[in-house]
Amino acid sequence: MNIALLGCGGVGKAFIRLLQEKERQLMAQGLCISLKYVLSSKGGVYNPQGIDKADFLEFAASERNIFKYSIGGNPNLSFEDIISNKDVDMLVELTPTNKDTGEPGLSHITQALKNGINVVTGNKGPIMLAYKKLKDLAKENSVQLGIGCTTGGALPTINAGLMDLAGSEILSIEGVLNGTTNFIIQQMEEKAIDYQEALKTAQDLGIAETDPSYDIEGWDTAIKMLILVNVLMGEEKTLKDINVSGITGITRKDIINAKTKGRKLKLIGRTVKDGEKLDMYVTLEEIDPSHPLYGVDGKNKGVTYISDTLGDLTIIGGASGTKAAAASILRDIVNIDKGYKFV
Amino acid sequence: MNIALLGCGGVGKAFIRLLQEKERQLMAQGLCISLKYVLSSKGGVYNPQGIDKADFLEFAASERNIFKYSIGGNPNLSFEDIISNKDVDMLVELTPTNKDTGEPGLSHITQALKNGINVVTGNKGPIMLAYKKLKDLAKENSVQLGIGCTTGGALPTINAGLMDLAGSEILSIEGVLNGTTNFIIQQMEEKAIDYQEALKTAQDLGIAETDPSYDIEGWDTAIKMLILVNVLMGEEKTLKDINVSGITGITRKDIINAKTKGRKLKLIGRTVKDGEKLDMYVTLEEIDPSHPLYGVDGKNKGVTYISDTLGDLTIIGGASGTKAAAASILRDIVNIDKGYKFV
Repeated sequence: MNIALLGCGGVGKAFIRLLQEKERQLMAQGLCISLKYVLSSKGGVYNPQGIDKADFLEFAASERNIFKYSIGGNPNLSFEDIISNKDVDMLVELTPTNKDTGEPGLSHITQALKNGINVVTGNKGPIMLAYKKLKDLAKENSVQLGIGCTTGGALPTINAGLMDLAGSEILSIEGVLNGTTNFIIQQMEEKAIDYQEALKTAQDLGIAETDPSYDIEGWDTAIKMLILVNVLMGEEKTLKDINVSGITGITRKDIINAKTKGRKLKLIGRTVKDGEKLDMYVTLEEIDPSHPLYGVDGKNKGVTYISDTLGDLTIIGGASGTKAAAASILRDIVNIDKGYKFV
Repeated sequence: MNIALLGCGGVGKAFIRLLQEKERQLMAQGLCISLKYVLSSKGGVYNPQGIDKADFLEFAASERNIFKYSIGGNPNLSFEDIISNKDVDMLVELTPTNKDTGEPGLSHITQALKNGINVVTGNKGPIMLAYKKLKDLAKENSVQLGIGCTTGGALPTINAGLMDLAGSEILSIEGVLNGTTNFIIQQMEEKAIDYQEALKTAQDLGIAETDPSYDIEGWDTAIKMLILVNVLMGEEKTLKDINVSGITGITRKDIINAKTKGRKLKLIGRTVKDGEKLDMYVTLEEIDPSHPLYGVDGKNKGVTYISDTLGDLTIIGGASGTKAAAASILRDIVNIDKGYKFV
C-alpha cells in the first residue's frame, strides 16, 4: 500500500513513527506500507521509493520546515502533485480542522476520492459537514473512506456501530465523548475543588486548551455525536439539530449532591429514536452506578448503543494522545486492507 | 447470497425468523439472502428457489420432523447433497456442539471450506479444538470463517479484538464471560440467599441447566477464553493450558465480605502475556468499583482487552437468548458480505 500523508503535526508525526514501529507486525499480516509523501502547509517530501521513516523523523524533530529534508524535500510540493503523479492508493488526511468550511481537508478528501484514492482521516470538519456527500463519492469511485479517528480516537465508536452491530439497527446512542470535561468533573469530585480551579488544573496539564469553550460548552461532544448519528443511523443532521449545553454552570454543591446519592455527574451526548423523529442533546446529568457509563472516568470515553437485535453494547476506553490517535488511523487502514467496505 | 442452514433448534429457527424480519433492511444494504437448505439430524428441506421462511416457520412450530414439510422436505436429504449440488456460498453451522471430538460440526465445516463455501458458526466444539487448522483451510480456499457467536454471542468479543483493535497487539484479555454464574452471584448479593438456593433459582428460570457443572465449574468461561486467545493472539492453546476454578465454593460470607469492602465477586477469565509465556486462568475474584468489569451484572457479559497502541478497551452487553445468538450469526454474515476477511 502506497500512502500520502497530509499534515505533519503531532498526530502526523506519531503516525509515521507508528508505521515504523509496526512495520514488521504489519508485514507479517501481509500489509506492506510505503510512505511516499509527507505534505505540510509549506511544501513537503516526496520519495517514490518510500520515505525513510526513522531518518525523516529524526530530521523533523528539530526542523519545522520539512521541505528542507535532503531526500525529496521540496518547498513547492503540493497536493496536486499527489493527484497527478497517481502513485498512491491511500491518503491520510490530518490537516488542521475547520468546522465552518471543512477546508482544506474537504477539498483534499473530495479530490482524492474522485481520483480513486482511499482516504482515512482524523479531520472532523469535512466529516461533520459533508459525510453523506463524501460517502457517496467514495462509493461511486469504488474506494473507501475511514473516519474512525474523528469520533473518540482510539475508542472504536464507529467500528462498534458499523461492524460490532452489523445487521442490527441502532435505536439510541449515548456517550461520554469528551475527555476534558470528564477530567474536570473528576478533579472536582476527588479534590473537592471548584470548577474554575479544576479547569485551571486541566489547562496547566495541557488537557484543556487556553480557550476551553469548545470542550466545556459541549460542542466537542455534540460534533462527535453528530458524526455518529450521520454515519451509523444514515442521517444528514447538522449541529443545529442538537440541543447543546456544557459544564460551565457546574458547582461544588452539584458534585456533593450527586455524591450523597451515590451518583456521578457526566456530560452526556444522547440521541434517541422517537418514531421518525430523533431527539439529540448534550447535557450534564447525574447517573447512578447501574448506568453503563458510570465507570467512564478521567480522560476515558465511552459509548452505549441500544440495538434492536443485538441488545445493548457499551464500549469504554481508548487511550488518548497523539500515538493513540495515530493508531486509530492505522486501524482504519488495516481494516480497509482486510477488505472491509466502510462505504 | 445463498445459504444452507445446518441445525434447526432454537437458534436455527431464530436465525430463519431473523432473516425474514430483516429481509428489507438487508436488501436496502444490497444483501439479498436466499435460504436454500435447512438440515436437521433427520433429513431436511431443500428448495433451489429459496425456502419460504414464514411458511416454513409456521410449519416447524408444530412439527419436529422438518422433512415432512411439503415444499422440498426430504427424509434423505444430507450434508453431502449440499456439497454436491454446489449451489450455496454460505454454510451456517448450528448443530449441537461436542467439545471432545467437535463432530459432526468439525466435518461439516471442514468439507464446506474445502469446497469453497464460507462458514459462519456458533458451534464451540470445532472452534475450540481446531481453529488454526480451519482458519488455514479457509485461507487456502479463499473463503471466510465467522465464529463470533461462539464466544459471548451478541457481545462482539471477536469483532472487538480483530476489528476494533486492528493494527495493535493484544497484551491481555480479561472477561466476565458466563451469564449463569454471574446471575447466581448477583442473586446471592441481592437476595442474601446461599449458593444452593441461588443455583436453584437459576435452574427454575432456565438460566442454569439441570447439570450446571459446565457453567459453575468455570468450563464455559475457560472455553470462551481459549477461543479468544487462539483467535486474537494467534495461539494454539488447549483447555489443559488454563488453570480453571469455578464458583461452587462461594459462601454468603464471601459475598458479605466483598460487599463491606464495596466490592463484588465475579468469575473472571484472564490471560496475560508474560514475555513469551501466557498466564491463563479462570477464578472467582473480588473486584472494586474502579475495575472496568465491575458493572457487568446479571446475565450481562463483558471483556477488557489491553492493547499496545490503542490502550484499554472494555465492551459490555450482549443480549442473551436465541434471537441474540441468531443476530450474532447474521452479524458475521453481514461483515463477510461487506468484504471483511476474518481469516
